Amino acid sequence: MAHHGEVYRGALKKIINSPSDAVDEMLDGFVAAHGDLVRLAAPRVVARCRPAGSKVGFVVGGGSGHEPAFAGYVGRGLADAAACGDIFTSPPPGVCLDAIRAANAGRGVLLGYGNYSGDVLNFGLAAQMAAAEGIEVREVQVTDDVASAPAGKTSRRRGIAGDIFVFKCIGAAAERGVPLDEVERIARQANAATRSMGVALSPCEVPGSDRPTFELPADMMEIGMGVHGEPGVRRGPLEPADEIAGHLVAAILADLDMPAGQELALMVNGLGATPYMDQYILYRAARRALEAAGHAIARSYVGEFITSLEMTGASITVMELDVELRSLLDDPALSPRFVQ
Amino acid sequence: MAHHGEVYRGALKKIINSPSDAVDEMLDGFVAAHGDLVRLAAPRVVARCRPAGSKVGFVVGGGSGHEPAFAGYVGRGLADAAACGDIFTSPPPGVCLDAIRAANAGRGVLLGYGNYSGDVLNFGLAAQMAAAEGIEVREVQVTDDVASAPAGKTSRRRGIAGDIFVFKCIGAAAERGVPLDEVERIARQANAATRSMGVALSPCEVPGSDRPTFELPADMMEIGMGVHGEPGVRRGPLEPADEIAGHLVAAILADLDMPAGQELALMVNGLGATPYMDQYILYRAARRALEAAGHAIARSYVGEFITSLEMTGASITVMELDVELRSLLDDPALSPRFVQ
Repeated sequence: MAHHGEVYRGALKKIINSPSDAVDEMLDGFVAAHGDLVRLAAPRVVARCRPAGSKVGFVVGGGSGHEPAFAGYVGRGLADAAACGDIFTSPPPGVCLDAIRAANAGRGVLLGYGNYSGDVLNFGLAAQMAAAEGIEVREVQVTDDVASAPAGKTSRRRGIAGDIFVFKCIGAAAERGVPLDEVERIARQANAATRSMGVALSPCEVPGSDRPTFELPADMMEIGMGVHGEPGVRRGPLEPADEIAGHLVAAILADLDMPAGQELALMVNGLGATPYMDQYILYRAARRALEAAGHAIARSYVGEFITSLEMTGASITVMELDVELRSLLDDPALSPRFVQ
Repeated sequence: MAHHGEVYRGALKKIINSPSDAVDEMLDGFVAAHGDLVRLAAPRVVARCRPAGSKVGFVVGGGSGHEPAFAGYVGRGLADAAACGDIFTSPPPGVCLDAIRAANAGRGVLLGYGNYSGDVLNFGLAAQMAAAEGIEVREVQVTDDVASAPAGKTSRRRGIAGDIFVFKCIGAAAERGVPLDEVERIARQANAATRSMGVALSPCEVPGSDRPTFELPADMMEIGMGVHGEPGVRRGPLEPADEIAGHLVAAILADLDMPAGQELALMVNGLGATPYMDQYILYRAARRALEAAGHAIARSYVGEFITSLEMTGASITVMELDVELRSLLDDPALSPRFVQ
């Protein structure tokens, strides 16, 4: 065990070949392993094997290193294509455009991604290029991370694990065959109903880098740290799971204006190295905290949904359910890493 | 980055409360999160919510810390109940007996578990107690780890990720309603067709312990190390993924006597902290090595199926498929952590 005040410096050993080949070899393995569901439609673009027929296209994407996001969510009832960037780097506009083309079935395409400046820029440029080709494109940025900006500035918030709730609702709506306006309305409604906050315990390391993404002393945690090591709201001694859950749930509840008895979906997302044991202990604590506040947990999701390589930590996501969102969450889905 | 020869000492920070409560709080969270599928039938016994009707009962189990094994595999087309021990410790006979009782529907119960002395002893005692209650019990120990004993002594081999292939076939057979003799025959056939080997890169830490389960210098890996840190066959410098896969596949192929063109199921199992990126790169390498040997990959599984808390590393599992085993693997399954 490291001692008080000692800086964490894990020997973050990786099972890769060349760092510069890691993303492409991963995608090569991914489409080989899940060849019944997905294919490489273009370099760095994962698409469904079989076009989904006449429906609104749905494209997700972002930097690599967050697996199973984003390619893991390409499939029936979810996305049509994913644009994959370098590690923790937005996909370039050309890759985003190829993903839009792969997803386009003539009824318009919605782009869903976390609210990061690089993604906003590159997906935005791709949307303009697609429009020039006659493809109608809408964009929705997920902004669930309450730690990343105050309540009055929600448009500056980052997207983290809430991506998955928003994507699930978008994908289900598109699969039902509703028009682009309606898919966009649902996307914005799902995003508005979703809040997350995370805790980081130890960093990850970008392959080829010679140091971790951040430093955190051996007995410390950082509440609200972003999935790329963006500064959080508070650094403090590592606390028990129940107290960590208490902080995260309190921040989320303070940001949502809900009547008692609100029905919620609850997600605990592991950031990479945090075991299922810890994830379920945190889930238990979060559930109890939400129930103590008078709310009801109607749907539960525990696991690694959006990670940061081998980062240790987790996030809690809450979605305010109504009849429509609950029904969209419950629709079937069949993708490489999300099946229900 | 740590330097050559420096011993790995990660600050293995955990999101738990009291170490002594970790297993029970995890199980409490687990059955709350997956309450539509599973329940606590007795302390440390996870069972299906609804009895499966008239079929052979199937019990799995072992030490905790290997999540999603074993409770994650309780559900339709898989196990009826799981007996959960302390971390890396076999469940006591009374817990195993409660799991047998929960799984018993009057047509006999099969116990499937990895071949560890504590599990053999405790499940064996429970089988005797169940027999005294009039329940016919059979036991099958999974012995897939080729690194754990030479080819002439397969009965001394440990069970690792091959558990999941064997459990899947047993669960499917039981769900089809075949009698106990037939379920047992299939279990032995599935085990005989399955081989695994793993690599460890960094240790895990049992909650409450003040040190990792083993020590491995910062630039080293250990081929064949067991999931509890049991000694492997070779310690050496950390190698690229393609070379690691080459070693593991060569050992597995040397142990299986297969004609060229054999159809295989291939699993890459992450041990806890190893990211999906590394898992898919290793999968790609293993697949290429098996294809180069003339075999065909018919089914693929990548993810965390049986872990060792936050250990870094992975294993490769190969199952020789025939028409029967492939069909059993393909049957539907609906459990908290395995859905298809």
